[in-house]
Amino acid sequence: VVAFSSGNHAQAVAAAAQLLGVRATIVMPEDAPPVKLEATRGYGAEIVLYDRYIEDRRAIAGAIADERGASLIPPYDHRDVMAGQGTTASELVEQVADLDLLVVPIGGGGLLSGCAVAAAALVSGIEIVGVEPEGRRAARDAMTAGEVVEVEVPRTLLDGQQTPNIGALPLRVLTALVDRVVGVTDAEASHAVRVLAARTKQLVEPSGASGLAAVLAGHVPVEGRRVGIVLSGGNVAAPTLARILAGEL
Amino acid sequence: VVAFSSGNHAQAVAAAAQLLGVRATIVMPEDAPPVKLEATRGYGAEIVLYDRYIEDRRAIAGAIADERGASLIPPYDHRDVMAGQGTTASELVEQVADLDLLVVPIGGGGLLSGCAVAAAALVSGIEIVGVEPEGRRAARDAMTAGEVVEVEVPRTLLDGQQTPNIGALPLRVLTALVDRVVGVTDAEASHAVRVLAARTKQLVEPSGASGLAAVLAGHVPVEGRRVGIVLSGGNVAAPTLARILAGEL
Repeated sequence: VVAFSSGNHAQAVAAAAQLLGVRATIVMPEDAPPVKLEATRGYGAEIVLYDRYIEDRRAIAGAIADERGASLIPPYDHRDVMAGQGTTASELVEQVADLDLLVVPIGGGGLLSGCAVAAAALVSGIEIVGVEPEGRRAARDAMTAGEVVEVEVPRTLLDGQQTPNIGALPLRVLTALVDRVVGVTDAEASHAVRVLAARTKQLVEPSGASGLAAVLAGHVPVEGRRVGIVLSGGNVAAPTLARILAGEL
Repeated sequence: VVAFSSGNHAQAVAAAAQLLGVRATIVMPEDAPPVKLEATRGYGAEIVLYDRYIEDRRAIAGAIADERGASLIPPYDHRDVMAGQGTTASELVEQVADLDLLVVPIGGGGLLSGCAVAAAALVSGIEIVGVEPEGRRAARDAMTAGEVVEVEVPRTLLDGQQTPNIGALPLRVLTALVDRVVGVTDAEASHAVRVLAARTKQLVEPSGASGLAAVLAGHVPVEGRRVGIVLSGGNVAAPTLARILAGEL
């Protein structure tokens, strides 16, 4: 199999391939956190690096898949991947009753769209909000335009959400089921990472904590409401984490 | 109420006092991690600092309690405290069946003795092992001597286990129910903290990770056995955590 991913989908595909005894090649950004590269290699995958600021990872992965006759497993623009990621929300609403609001990070839109389908089906009237980096408007612009929009990829701590666009299939779900998408800054995400470490003793990466960041920063009104927040991904390079915890980032 | 504690019991007493609307004074070491001092103050307690390398905290706390007519709540040498901490093991064995071995950190012995009573009552034949800092033999020497032994307090990353002795009541339980106590080094504890952060995304302080450290270092044979390990406490100063994660400690 061949996949492309900023890191978490990479690890998921590599781990699944290892379990199934299948060879995996993953196209990853050369500036992905070393911890994500090492973890993916640790699951036995071959890694092909690219420059996310100038190269097209889909083209690179597609060429490798064609050359090797391998299946390409996209990180978000695929029904099965969206459905799989949506089990996050179905587990959440099974465990916590009567949610009024669900807040989910959005990179390419797989997690958010899958969670939106699951939550909307299981909890009538639930409000669903997506969260992306303030400097990357791919989801907000796509919802406004009604079509996939390519944006410039900003440098940000939120490395799990640096994709230049959201997927076409996720966009259809967002348009139908997601109330809105809001942006969070690096500083807001860092603060959320610190709160999670200090108060819940959980290590969550900045992109994974972006949902909580939006709530703590007041971008999503929560007063008097029962709120579910999806935390996703805990891969932060140790020096980066050290600087976040020390309040330097 | 008045209590003395290196940090985690301090927070527990302060939080309970706040819930009950009772004034709490906690005697804490002046070199306790700032995060533990801040958290205890955050629960509304007054903190009295002492030098743990030369002063006697029990005497200080006892004098304050006498002067104010307050109740003294010791951190481990008390039946109710031991029983309360033992609920950790009763919850664990309710959730995970057929454990062969339980590994628990020991500072003063409240957590280990409470867990030993619970585990031995609920799981017949379970082996119970305590873990203390390699440089502090208070538990090992007391079990050998059959009486409480005062040892020199070493400087160690394992700040939750720097007490110069274990309690008399915990020692009676250890003698009856605990198979043995092993020591771990600072480096072994740091490694365990890194493994927990990288693999489970949990933030555990060095003392709290000492049980896992003993297992990873091979001090406790686990081959083919079902093993429970108690993780306890997640308060590490950010700069210290940064150095641990970077492999500098």
